Parts: sequence; C-alpha cells; structure tokens
Amino acid sequence: MPHLVILYSSNLESRTDVSALCRRLADTMLAQRDEGGRAVFPAGGTRVFAYPAPHFAISDGGAAGRVAGGDGDYGFAYLNLRMGRGRSEAVQQGVGGALMAVAKAHFEPLMTAMHLGVTLQIDVGSEVFDAKYSTLHPLFNKTDNKVD
Amino acid sequence: MPHLVILYSSNLESRTDVSALCRRLADTMLAQRDEGGRAVFPAGGTRVFAYPAPHFAISDGGAAGRVAGGDGDYGFAYLNLRMGRGRSEAVQQGVGGALMAVAKAHFEPLMTAMHLGVTLQIDVGSEVFDAKYSTLHPLFNKTDNKVD
Amino acid sequence: MPHLVILYSSNLESRTDVSALCRRLADTMLAQRDEGGRAVFPAGGTRVFAYPAPHFAISDGGAAGRVAGGDGDYGFAYLNLRMGRGRSEAVQQGVGGALMAVAKAHFEPLMTAMHLGVTLQIDVGSEVFDAKYSTLHPLFNKTDNKVD
Repeated sequence: MPHLVILYSSNLESRTDVSALCRRLADTMLAQRDEGGRAVFPAGGTRVFAYPAPHFAISDGGAAGRVAGGDGDYGFAYLNLRMGRGRSEAVQQGVGGALMAVAKAHFEPLMTAMHLGVTLQIDVGSEVFDAKYSTLHPLFNKTDNKVD
Repeated sequence: MPHLVILYSSNLESRTDVSALCRRLADTMLAQRDEGGRAVFPAGGTRVFAYPAPHFAISDGGAAGRVAGGDGDYGFAYLNLRMGRGRSEAVQQGVGGALMAVAKAHFEPLMTAMHLGVTLQIDVGSEVFDAKYSTLHPLFNKTDNKVD
Repeated sequence: MPHLVILYSSNLESRTDVSALCRRLADTMLAQRDEGGRAVFPAGGTRVFAYPAPHFAISDGGAAGRVAGGDGDYGFAYLNLRMGRGRSEAVQQGVGGALMAVAKAHFEPLMTAMHLGVTLQIDVGSEVFDAKYSTLHPLFNKTDNKVD
C-alpha cells in the first residue's frame, strides 16, 4: 500500500495522457509528509493503476449535455486510493487534497471541452490478511517509514 | 457516487452487448426513488464501468460443465454497486432488486447457452475523503437530491 | 463469492503467464478446507479475474532501480481476494497463506529479472445486498458448503 486505481470512460483515452497523470499522482503520494515530517507512504509500495472502461454509461447518456449546447459526450474518471490503517485524519485529508489538486490540474483543459466528472475517494483498508513478496520494497527500506 | 463496476470474463465479450447492459443499469439507477419520491441517486454522479478480464479462471475450469453435457466454457459477471451512506435499507434493497432484474433479463438468453454465473453486490462506501470536480454534475444540480 | 481480482502493471504481460496464475489460484481456493474438513469456498462462485493496467506508475519510476544496477523497469501485481463473512480467522489466514505461496512460486523467476512487488490482501465483504443468478452454481450445489 498505498495504491491508487483510476477507472475511467474510454472516451477519455485519446483526449488526455493518463500515463502522465499516473506519474504525477505517484510523485504526489511520495511527497506526502506527516506531522512529524516523515514520508506518509513507503516508496516501494506506492503504485497507480489506470483502466479505461471499454463499456460504460454515464448519467442520462447525453440528453442534458446536448440541451446545454454540448455534444452529449460525457466523460468520467474515478480515482480511488486505498491506504493502510493508522494514519491521522489530518494526513488523510492532506493526501486527498494534494491528489485532488493534481487531478484538477490534469483534467482542467478537458472540463470546458466536454461534460466531465472527476471524483476522488480515499478508503482505509480493513483487510484481514496482508502479505508482500517484493524485490521493489528493499530498494527503499532504509528510508521508508514503517506504516504501510 | 453511485458507481457500478462490472467485472466479467472476456469470453462473454462476443456473446452479449455489455454497453447496452451498462446503459440499462444506469437508466435503472436514475429511475430509483426513495420513500419520499425523491431520486435516490444524483444524475451527474451516476456511472457504470464494465471491464472484460483478459485472463480469468472460473470454478473447476470446465470439468463439471462437460460432465453435465456442456462444453466446459464457463462465464462470470460480477456487478458491484458502490453507493454513499445515508440511505435506508429499504432503498438499498429496492435498488438491488431493480438492478438484478435488469441483469437477469440481460443474461437470461446466455444462461442456457453456457454455464454462467451473475452476482450483484452493493457496498456502502466508508471513504475517509471524497472530492469532486465536474462539469457534469452542474447539468443536473437543480433536480438532484442532496445525498450522493 | 469468493472472487480474486488481480491488478497488475501491463509490463508484466509479456513476461509471465497470467492465465496460468489465475487457474492455479482458483484451484488453490477450491482446495481449501475448514477446521471441519469442509470446502471453504463454493466451487460455483469461485472466480479469478486479472487485469493488466495499460497506464501505471510505480514507486519513483525507476531511479532507485537504476542506481541498484537494474534497468528501472518496475513491476507490480496486486491480488485482492474478497470473501464472504462467517469464516474463522484461522481459515482466513490459511487461505491467504496458500494463495500467497502460489503467487510466490509464480513470480519467483521474475523477482531477480526486475524489481517487482507482489501484494496479496484479503477483504471480508460487508455488502448490504447480494444476489445471484446462475447456471454455474447448480453444477456444484450437492457438494458445496453453505457459506458463500
């Protein structure tokens, strides 16, 4: 942990660089610091996965958008961060705000070009089992904090 | 919110029109009303994403299906609705029943053609952070209810 | 239930046989037994879906990997099992351990070829609505246990 999964309508695929968005979001997660100045997230466990949905339906399908003068082509991107337990509410809100700022900056040019919804939610995992196997985590173990 | 995510085995892709299913499910969500006659879901936040899984494994992989006279080609579709907190159990059950009726009608022709499982689950989100950025929601803000 | 969803960076797609991994994980789920010797999971509801992420960002993007002598091409696979309520902690841990052993054996050859992270988490569903429609479950109903 953490991981951030982006689900989005595939009509956004040709309109915006989702790989660049993933990178910026990952960098933002890595830059987060808690009240004591420690990294919020372990570098070796930080990942962003983005999936365009080949099939999707959004809202009324375009009717209201056309009435409003658009072409009725709606888009949606849903960003869901799952993080481990044990972080303060201030940290959670800080992370959310920082990630949402990145998402806003990224999607802002599209907002006037189409009717687009972007939602970010953070969940705290309540897993009953958690195991890792990694040659990635050890690259960072010296500097990572303990909370995952 | 709400969003409905469909994960399904990719062997269903050529057998059924998943985009049409997404549209019907979205329309069904938009048609839901609570005890007071208000829309259960905000139109601007209602979306359905469907993802065929390029790799999958189902049940015993076909052995029991072949014994039963089928070709051992199993299919599965998992529908997961995530909605916000604050709705009554009656509303939750009503939404689930309405969506399942759509799924049943959609998949019914396939049920005899192959061994197919369809499951619908509804989760109530317990997110610790929730933010929106949208030119889609404002199209509907006059008529949407407040719960998201 | 149960279902196991694998999200992974698409740079793993050409390096490992994910369909084979899905099959081994499903077989492992089907082989699980509880304290009373009964099958932990119903055969008809057991499925694994795997999704390569066409866009992704992992950790620092490669810098530390290159410093360590690698090519900076990181990979990540996240395995998430969702199971129903009502199973003991011993069963949950046993299932997790068995699945992680499969994942370790599968990814072990890749671990030295690249910097790779594999994480497995198990969640117990807290769904408020659950419905099934299936010609798959009845193939197994005689031998399946009742918990789903």
